[in-house]
Amino acid sequence: MTPSNPLNALNFSGGPGALPDSVLQQVQEAIRAVPEVGLSILGISHRSDWFAAVVAELEDNIRRLMGLPADYRVLFLQGGATQQFTMLPMSLLAGRSEPADYLHTGYWSGKALPEARKVGPVRVVWSGEAGGFGRLPADGELDFNPRAPYLHYVSNETVEGLQFHRLIGRDDVPRICDMSSDFLSAPGDYTRFAMIYAHAQKNIGPAGVTVVILRDTLLADAPADLPAFLDYRAQIAAHSILNTPPVFAIYVVLLVTRWLLGEIGGLAAMERVNTAKAALLYRALDDSDGFYAGHAAPADRSKMNVAFKLPTPELEATFIAAARAAGFSGLGGHRSIGGIRASIYNGLTFGAVEKLVDFMDGFRRQAPRP
Amino acid sequence: MTPSNPLNALNFSGGPGALPDSVLQQVQEAIRAVPEVGLSILGISHRSDWFAAVVAELEDNIRRLMGLPADYRVLFLQGGATQQFTMLPMSLLAGRSEPADYLHTGYWSGKALPEARKVGPVRVVWSGEAGGFGRLPADGELDFNPRAPYLHYVSNETVEGLQFHRLIGRDDVPRICDMSSDFLSAPGDYTRFAMIYAHAQKNIGPAGVTVVILRDTLLADAPADLPAFLDYRAQIAAHSILNTPPVFAIYVVLLVTRWLLGEIGGLAAMERVNTAKAALLYRALDDSDGFYAGHAAPADRSKMNVAFKLPTPELEATFIAAARAAGFSGLGGHRSIGGIRASIYNGLTFGAVEKLVDFMDGFRRQAPRP
Repeated sequence: MTPSNPLNALNFSGGPGALPDSVLQQVQEAIRAVPEVGLSILGISHRSDWFAAVVAELEDNIRRLMGLPADYRVLFLQGGATQQFTMLPMSLLAGRSEPADYLHTGYWSGKALPEARKVGPVRVVWSGEAGGFGRLPADGELDFNPRAPYLHYVSNETVEGLQFHRLIGRDDVPRICDMSSDFLSAPGDYTRFAMIYAHAQKNIGPAGVTVVILRDTLLADAPADLPAFLDYRAQIAAHSILNTPPVFAIYVVLLVTRWLLGEIGGLAAMERVNTAKAALLYRALDDSDGFYAGHAAPADRSKMNVAFKLPTPELEATFIAAARAAGFSGLGGHRSIGGIRASIYNGLTFGAVEKLVDFMDGFRRQAPRP
Repeated sequence: MTPSNPLNALNFSGGPGALPDSVLQQVQEAIRAVPEVGLSILGISHRSDWFAAVVAELEDNIRRLMGLPADYRVLFLQGGATQQFTMLPMSLLAGRSEPADYLHTGYWSGKALPEARKVGPVRVVWSGEAGGFGRLPADGELDFNPRAPYLHYVSNETVEGLQFHRLIGRDDVPRICDMSSDFLSAPGDYTRFAMIYAHAQKNIGPAGVTVVILRDTLLADAPADLPAFLDYRAQIAAHSILNTPPVFAIYVVLLVTRWLLGEIGGLAAMERVNTAKAALLYRALDDSDGFYAGHAAPADRSKMNVAFKLPTPELEATFIAAARAAGFSGLGGHRSIGGIRASIYNGLTFGAVEKLVDFMDGFRRQAPRP
């Protein structure tokens, strides 16, 4: 196989993000020929026995990693989280009089709101908008409606770097969570969710495929006349092959789950790595005498996205340019909040964070003080 | 670069299908590092300047290849043709009293019908169903409605191997065509279409991206409250980046358009190759004394998908197994009609068809006569 490219290891992009080098090497080989098939992954039919086995193994890997019992369905769809937060109110909110509970904790949970409101009544349980999305709500601020059709929230706000480190909501109301940016990053009691969705391009693969996990009892009262491709029941009946699925992206996600189960050793082991990476990086912020000012309240700091600012926008631009020259990429903050964002998804190694922290320490010592 | 894999050259799959070897080699390199970026294509942000340039060049290449003037928009979406034939009635048929004209010429045009009927009135202008979809309509059989909101048809029926070799419809009714399986295979007067859509996985790339070409005047009366990701106007305003696009698949399509413009020399040259491939293969059918019985009426034979039967299902199974042993893949007919289907998309070479025809001649001479 072609030797690896060291620059990929220093890719701190918010997504599409870094993938493990061993996965990239297998993908590269599969472009020429998938070993057990003999054909390029780009030319293998989604109706082949081989692809059916890919989907079956991937589903099984996700069930094992997350501890999902048989009454959960696992789907691989297109359209990203956007398609999901559009589809789910069509099935679960249309025609309801009781509003669904939504949390507005950042950029992505905010994107879900107008799409739900087009379909049915929505109640925003809590919004961090007035506070610039600098923190998440405390339990005492959350008054959930026991009659809500469902609760929708985002477990990790990618843009602001805010992550729930606890379960929220009521067990008697379907808990629906967009886990796009912390999916398969740590173990959890996933059976307390009625539905989880996550696009691949943060922790588990390339852009173009979205994993959806749901209990099919959730769909008992969904409208009968939905467009087939927006109807979870039709997608379940077709085993994610209602129409041609993104074969390549699904195969890459399979390789990532094999890496999680094998090389890494499961989600508890993955969490240990992720916790160590985040601790190292936040310590660099905390030990910087305010030079690197973290965006998130310490209790809600994300282990996936570390957003921070430097004393001036000019210094931030200098920082990004110097980092790029040193081989680091993807460090620019999201255009909605600016600043710096280091995304440290599953595929990014502890060693890469060590290198970034070294770079940050050196940059700080050389920087002019305002 | 890694040497090419000769088996890819003999991939007659109905889709995802064969891609040119020179494209596969560039894709393989891009998995390690896109030359001008230095990062894996799987880890490059869709918000990067590089990706914006990819989309701009791809759009420009498609405009050049098809001769599209500035009043056409070119979008790169997910969800395949299925998403398109679901989306378009939402924008163009909802709330209308006059039915849209639909042709029912095979498997894929049939898939579009129920999705349109969920949204508004539909009139089937002509159906080939009773005739087993063995031919396309003659002009005298087509009585189009001048007041229809639009006409929808499929230019090439992938499953049955039927292709329109002329333009149909009225110039005063928006002509909307699913060109998924013959997109960019030949020149045409594409400005006579109001909208064209095509998923990538036949002629132009991997599964996971769909090209949509439309005049934005078409959307003047579309409903205001559509879900954003199903609203062409929102997708146009966001330049196909309403949410994370399938970066990898779009890049591969760019490489294929570069190959079409460069190595091949444009659509007229591509058509000459495709015509020669189809002529060679159909001649093998016509010269087989009925051993290889083509599905399509000769006037409507597809240059992309050649569907045929052998005297018995047993012989067909023997044929497919022997072909596989000889290195040919993807020759099984679609499950809805069975038999054999040789798909000879842009990426498949004339030499590969010569090899298949040689194999077919040899098989026929050795086969037991019934």
